[in-house]
Amino acid sequence: MTETLGRDILDRLNQAAVHSEPGPGVTRFSFTPEHRAVGELLEGWMREAGLETRWDAAGNLIGRAEGTGADPRVLLIGSHQDSVRSGGRYDGMLGIVLPIACMRTLHEAGESLPYPVEIIAFSDEEGGRFTTSLIGSKAIAGGFNMDVLTMADAHGVSLEQAMHDFGAAPREIPLMARRPEDVRAFVEVHIEQGPVLEEQGLEVGVVTALTGIERHRLVLTGKASHAGTTPMDSRRDALVGAAGIVLELDRVCRDTADCVGVVGELEVTPGVVNVIPAQTRLTLELRSPDDAIRVDARERILAAAQRSAEQRGLELEASRVYEQSAVTCAPWLIDALGAAATEETGKPALRLFSGAGHDGLAMIRLTDIGMLFVRSPEGLSHHPDEDLYAHDAGVAAQTLLRFLRGL
Amino acid sequence: MTETLGRDILDRLNQAAVHSEPGPGVTRFSFTPEHRAVGELLEGWMREAGLETRWDAAGNLIGRAEGTGADPRVLLIGSHQDSVRSGGRYDGMLGIVLPIACMRTLHEAGESLPYPVEIIAFSDEEGGRFTTSLIGSKAIAGGFNMDVLTMADAHGVSLEQAMHDFGAAPREIPLMARRPEDVRAFVEVHIEQGPVLEEQGLEVGVVTALTGIERHRLVLTGKASHAGTTPMDSRRDALVGAAGIVLELDRVCRDTADCVGVVGELEVTPGVVNVIPAQTRLTLELRSPDDAIRVDARERILAAAQRSAEQRGLELEASRVYEQSAVTCAPWLIDALGAAATEETGKPALRLFSGAGHDGLAMIRLTDIGMLFVRSPEGLSHHPDEDLYAHDAGVAAQTLLRFLRGL
Repeated sequence: MTETLGRDILDRLNQAAVHSEPGPGVTRFSFTPEHRAVGELLEGWMREAGLETRWDAAGNLIGRAEGTGADPRVLLIGSHQDSVRSGGRYDGMLGIVLPIACMRTLHEAGESLPYPVEIIAFSDEEGGRFTTSLIGSKAIAGGFNMDVLTMADAHGVSLEQAMHDFGAAPREIPLMARRPEDVRAFVEVHIEQGPVLEEQGLEVGVVTALTGIERHRLVLTGKASHAGTTPMDSRRDALVGAAGIVLELDRVCRDTADCVGVVGELEVTPGVVNVIPAQTRLTLELRSPDDAIRVDARERILAAAQRSAEQRGLELEASRVYEQSAVTCAPWLIDALGAAATEETGKPALRLFSGAGHDGLAMIRLTDIGMLFVRSPEGLSHHPDEDLYAHDAGVAAQTLLRFLRGL
Repeated sequence: MTETLGRDILDRLNQAAVHSEPGPGVTRFSFTPEHRAVGELLEGWMREAGLETRWDAAGNLIGRAEGTGADPRVLLIGSHQDSVRSGGRYDGMLGIVLPIACMRTLHEAGESLPYPVEIIAFSDEEGGRFTTSLIGSKAIAGGFNMDVLTMADAHGVSLEQAMHDFGAAPREIPLMARRPEDVRAFVEVHIEQGPVLEEQGLEVGVVTALTGIERHRLVLTGKASHAGTTPMDSRRDALVGAAGIVLELDRVCRDTADCVGVVGELEVTPGVVNVIPAQTRLTLELRSPDDAIRVDARERILAAAQRSAEQRGLELEASRVYEQSAVTCAPWLIDALGAAATEETGKPALRLFSGAGHDGLAMIRLTDIGMLFVRSPEGLSHHPDEDLYAHDAGVAAQTLLRFLRGL
């Protein structure tokens, strides 16, 4: 049963992965034809599981099963349909396809839960298209800032236009926020995206906290000049300054426990073999489950960046474009998910924090959150080779079923 | 007379600068509509100066004046019509427009030279479109490698196709090389593109040698993974490795006399804010008037790059895509140009080497070369703000006229 369920989940995840832009891995951004196509596939599976489906004003797909008991408070379960560019097929999607499989299992067995359940395929979590993320979960949790609707993607299309073209109703987002008294909790199943469960030989683990995240955009401006005739001392090379920042961020994060960071984007202007770079644009990202650690690392890195710019005659503009505090999972959900995992696997449930951000970062505004992690082979994610064992998917589904029945 | 001539030269250079791709400064690549348009403008000015014009198989525009004496050996004078991306309006073009003005001055005065003169607007010197440079001058000097015809530009158009579409005859290039016995010398007038003449308060200077140049393309390959969940110690971040190379090149060149270098291009894949960079592609360029210094710097930088890659678990591919040895100007031309400059300015002629490459690097294969440098305000070149004083253009034109009459 566990193995059959796992293989079915994996098969469906692989079917869903074809809905991608061309290129390696999965590239599925929000409010695109790929988003629509995968949503229609998921909607069919939701109906097959006995769920009543609808699309909300923020482009989320929701499938609902009514409860048989007196408590009207809904348990929300879900994850995101979108990917990073050239990402994997399990990140996000597992947390939609797996609970659908659980609900189908109950449906086919004629089994009902005493409380209502909604499975949500969030429209946007990664933020790969616009410089904002968690669009779908913020809209549901009442934390959506309408100002971001004017943000433009790389083609100059605003978020509002993109949502409108998708058939969503961005201006109605303020009306769709759930009320805390109507919601029991939010639970998400997700691949770990890191090496811890594999190192410990475990199928699943229970998340204790979600990392805080901040992102910055830096622009370093020097001066273009001829690379052969400008003496080294007279140069204002914006790439040399940026290289110093890249290495400083790497050094600070290596020297700081519970802190990671990356420069993921770096663009050089004019970008010509024999011209001294006039400008570089780069992103900085920092994460820590402890906000104080993250803020301290940020201050050290930005101070070093300022010094690096001044030493090289460069102007530095830095703006923080995103900041999300770390959040903790609810103890009662940690305990319930841990008990279900132990019952299923016969092993103590490992508790770990998440280095990645997840929809829980937004949902914490609305309700208690809980997360179940599933082993990531080689800890690899955000990569075309991202993998998932069918066995682990089956164990995670059985764990979620035990949790649902025990709630 | 000097001031009028200088203003006329500057006016025409500013007229020519409109033939550019959109964007800041001048972007005029080889075998493009902009190349054609500026060539037609120059061709009109050549005819106005009494020159007979033609376009050769390599897309060079040539204007010829016959000599009145017995010596049939031609004096070649010229420079390049192409620019770097977002470059200036005087780089290259001064060395075409200024000698045309000199020939027009002679023509209008009814004055002839005893030897033939050809003014050449070389089709390509910068190499901004294809990964090869000096196309026009190599073709004339017999040093053109036909293998480069298969190189593609950023749009996938081969050099052969681009030349063909332009109306040139790339397959006939081997037939067009000049014979050394038919040529007297090659002389080029060029903005200094550096700060030396301005620092010394001089209008013009005489070049003693042209820097050697080498270019490399490096590819660093690591592994994309999730920027939040991959521990710092497990990362194979291709941008961190590249940043180490950028700083090492800068350090080596700062510590080495008569050596400059730059990383002008750097591209990050996948280039996403929350994904560890899987690959970086970058260029290295090194220049020195002393080949041994350049080779030593290269060896130190590439060894450091290899160590940097190994320390970070990255694969490094490095290929030298261009190498040009330093060349020296002919003493008799240095003396003759220096004497003309001293007569014109009343000051000793400064002798300096060129940190930039020029068409002389290719023409040395054919004949003796000489170069006259003209002051660059702020030493700025390869930049939209590249400037030229009309007074200096006039002094340089009078110097060239003195040289031509004295030859």
